[in-house]
Amino acid sequence: MKKLINNPNDVVDEMIEGYIKAHPNQVRRLEENKRSIVIASETKENKVGVLIGGGSGHEPAFMGYVGRGMADGVAVGNIFASPPPEPIVEATKAIDKGNGVVYIYGNYAGDIMNFGMAAELAEMEEDIDVELVVVNDDVASASSEEKEKRRGIAGEFFVTKAAGAAAEKGYSLKEVADVARRTNERTRTMGVGLTPCYLPQTNEPSFSLKENEMEIGLGHHGEPGVEKGELQQADQVADRLVQDILNDMAMSNGDKVAVLVNGLGSTTRMELYIVFRRVEQILAKQGIEIYRSYVGNYSTSLEMGGCSVTLTNLDEELISLIDAEADCPMYAQL
Amino acid sequence: MKKLINNPNDVVDEMIEGYIKAHPNQVRRLEENKRSIVIASETKENKVGVLIGGGSGHEPAFMGYVGRGMADGVAVGNIFASPPPEPIVEATKAIDKGNGVVYIYGNYAGDIMNFGMAAELAEMEEDIDVELVVVNDDVASASSEEKEKRRGIAGEFFVTKAAGAAAEKGYSLKEVADVARRTNERTRTMGVGLTPCYLPQTNEPSFSLKENEMEIGLGHHGEPGVEKGELQQADQVADRLVQDILNDMAMSNGDKVAVLVNGLGSTTRMELYIVFRRVEQILAKQGIEIYRSYVGNYSTSLEMGGCSVTLTNLDEELISLIDAEADCPMYAQL
Repeated sequence: MKKLINNPNDVVDEMIEGYIKAHPNQVRRLEENKRSIVIASETKENKVGVLIGGGSGHEPAFMGYVGRGMADGVAVGNIFASPPPEPIVEATKAIDKGNGVVYIYGNYAGDIMNFGMAAELAEMEEDIDVELVVVNDDVASASSEEKEKRRGIAGEFFVTKAAGAAAEKGYSLKEVADVARRTNERTRTMGVGLTPCYLPQTNEPSFSLKENEMEIGLGHHGEPGVEKGELQQADQVADRLVQDILNDMAMSNGDKVAVLVNGLGSTTRMELYIVFRRVEQILAKQGIEIYRSYVGNYSTSLEMGGCSVTLTNLDEELISLIDAEADCPMYAQL
Repeated sequence: MKKLINNPNDVVDEMIEGYIKAHPNQVRRLEENKRSIVIASETKENKVGVLIGGGSGHEPAFMGYVGRGMADGVAVGNIFASPPPEPIVEATKAIDKGNGVVYIYGNYAGDIMNFGMAAELAEMEEDIDVELVVVNDDVASASSEEKEKRRGIAGEFFVTKAAGAAAEKGYSLKEVADVARRTNERTRTMGVGLTPCYLPQTNEPSFSLKENEMEIGLGHHGEPGVEKGELQQADQVADRLVQDILNDMAMSNGDKVAVLVNGLGSTTRMELYIVFRRVEQILAKQGIEIYRSYVGNYSTSLEMGGCSVTLTNLDEELISLIDAEADCPMYAQL
């Protein structure tokens, strides 16, 4: 895979350098740790902090979610690798306004360990209250009986959006964490992988599929999915992804959802809108109302080919949080 | 190339269906022509209309540029093919408020012909004044002595932004067209292609390059560039692209520019920010101030690999237009 990079060991730091230089009014890097990025402008007095983070390679996640009404800070790991506790703790100190910080991250062993350690350090050494919220929206990664084993993928966007809006509205630490957890509970994602991504340092494919083969439920880092098979048409793929979600999270006529059709990297917006078209048809047939739609690259796996569908079953409070204004460097660039 | 599509002949219409369903508060399709999309909300009384269009396959261009403060309407062609006059005329009729419409499109034979014919029809049959603005920002596609032969690529984003803001501020037809033309005159783009895209109907690559080869100046539809060579590091590529632009458009210490580092489809945001990092370094060294940065997929060639760099040399008026608020479905999705 041809890549526009310099030394493969420098991709994350050079990306961050470019990011900070591109959006100096919106984000800044901490002097204390070059992998800690926080919102550049002053946030509201007494606001609860929202901190996210994870491995790189999922851009715009997670770095791109930092902004007013979204996350206040992010700890940036190496590609597909959790950030260590240090950048998490430094970002925590920078964004805490005295009312504590909510950590939101995906359900991966490294993130669980590092965000957990960082929370202990922040509480013991800095006297900052921390709430941990683990996202596990990926239906394919474990059965509903073992939901606690499921990985976090694109649904983290909605969890961050709801928590960020709640914090901006002045919710307490516990309330922001509760909103984030409830959003996670009401969110499901199913994806399909078509073509692999290539880690810059090895330039090896993250998995292999035959020509004209797809894998349902393939993980964000190339983890095995639930089923390999011949590549189907977009409508059939969308049918399968939505059906798996609805089988896992019962919804009723009249429910309102937020929908995210997310590209994994190299899949075109044309294809994503074709998939969305079918998702809308299926939901309309079941009387489920799409309250808001998101179509594009929100959480990628480098240049992986494929997409995921995320549904969040909204309640009245989540609707008001989804509606709230937000501003992030990787969006709203007009 | 594996694609998430249904019948390859339906990709454009199904994409539009999905697009309209995804963003019903922002865009609507005309009943008179299914390839005409206009802004959904009522625009300002007496506002000059801004109409764009071109082939599909460049998403978010051009469909994604329709919104308040940007274009009022778009005519959507088949993949890499100009729209015929009919959808252009229908969109013109829908967006005209009595003060005329500015057409903005790239310098391609099909677009020149079809937008020209549409303008004649609109003027003769509908009594709507039309101004034509042809974008030709691609430095690689002809020498500076033959600038009128140059193609339009990613720079159309800035031309549309400036014209859309001017129209929203109440500029006259002539004034909006002048702003658009001046933006075009002050805009240059240079790109590099790494990997081809595949047309859905043939699934053939748009060009061929050897493993580890790149092509400087490769066109938006796979048109030949100015030089093939071994893939270089991101910094060297950025150096070359920016140098070619500065050789073509003299800039001075203290000038302010808008920068767009645009992905062609499958190139990751990580790479685009690494390229941006170097662009910023080069401009800083020359005392050129980056007033505003855009990094992401603004004008693609399906899943082509590579990027382009666009610089617009801003004056005071263009700064105020770049700063103006805008809202489009394919951006600002938070």
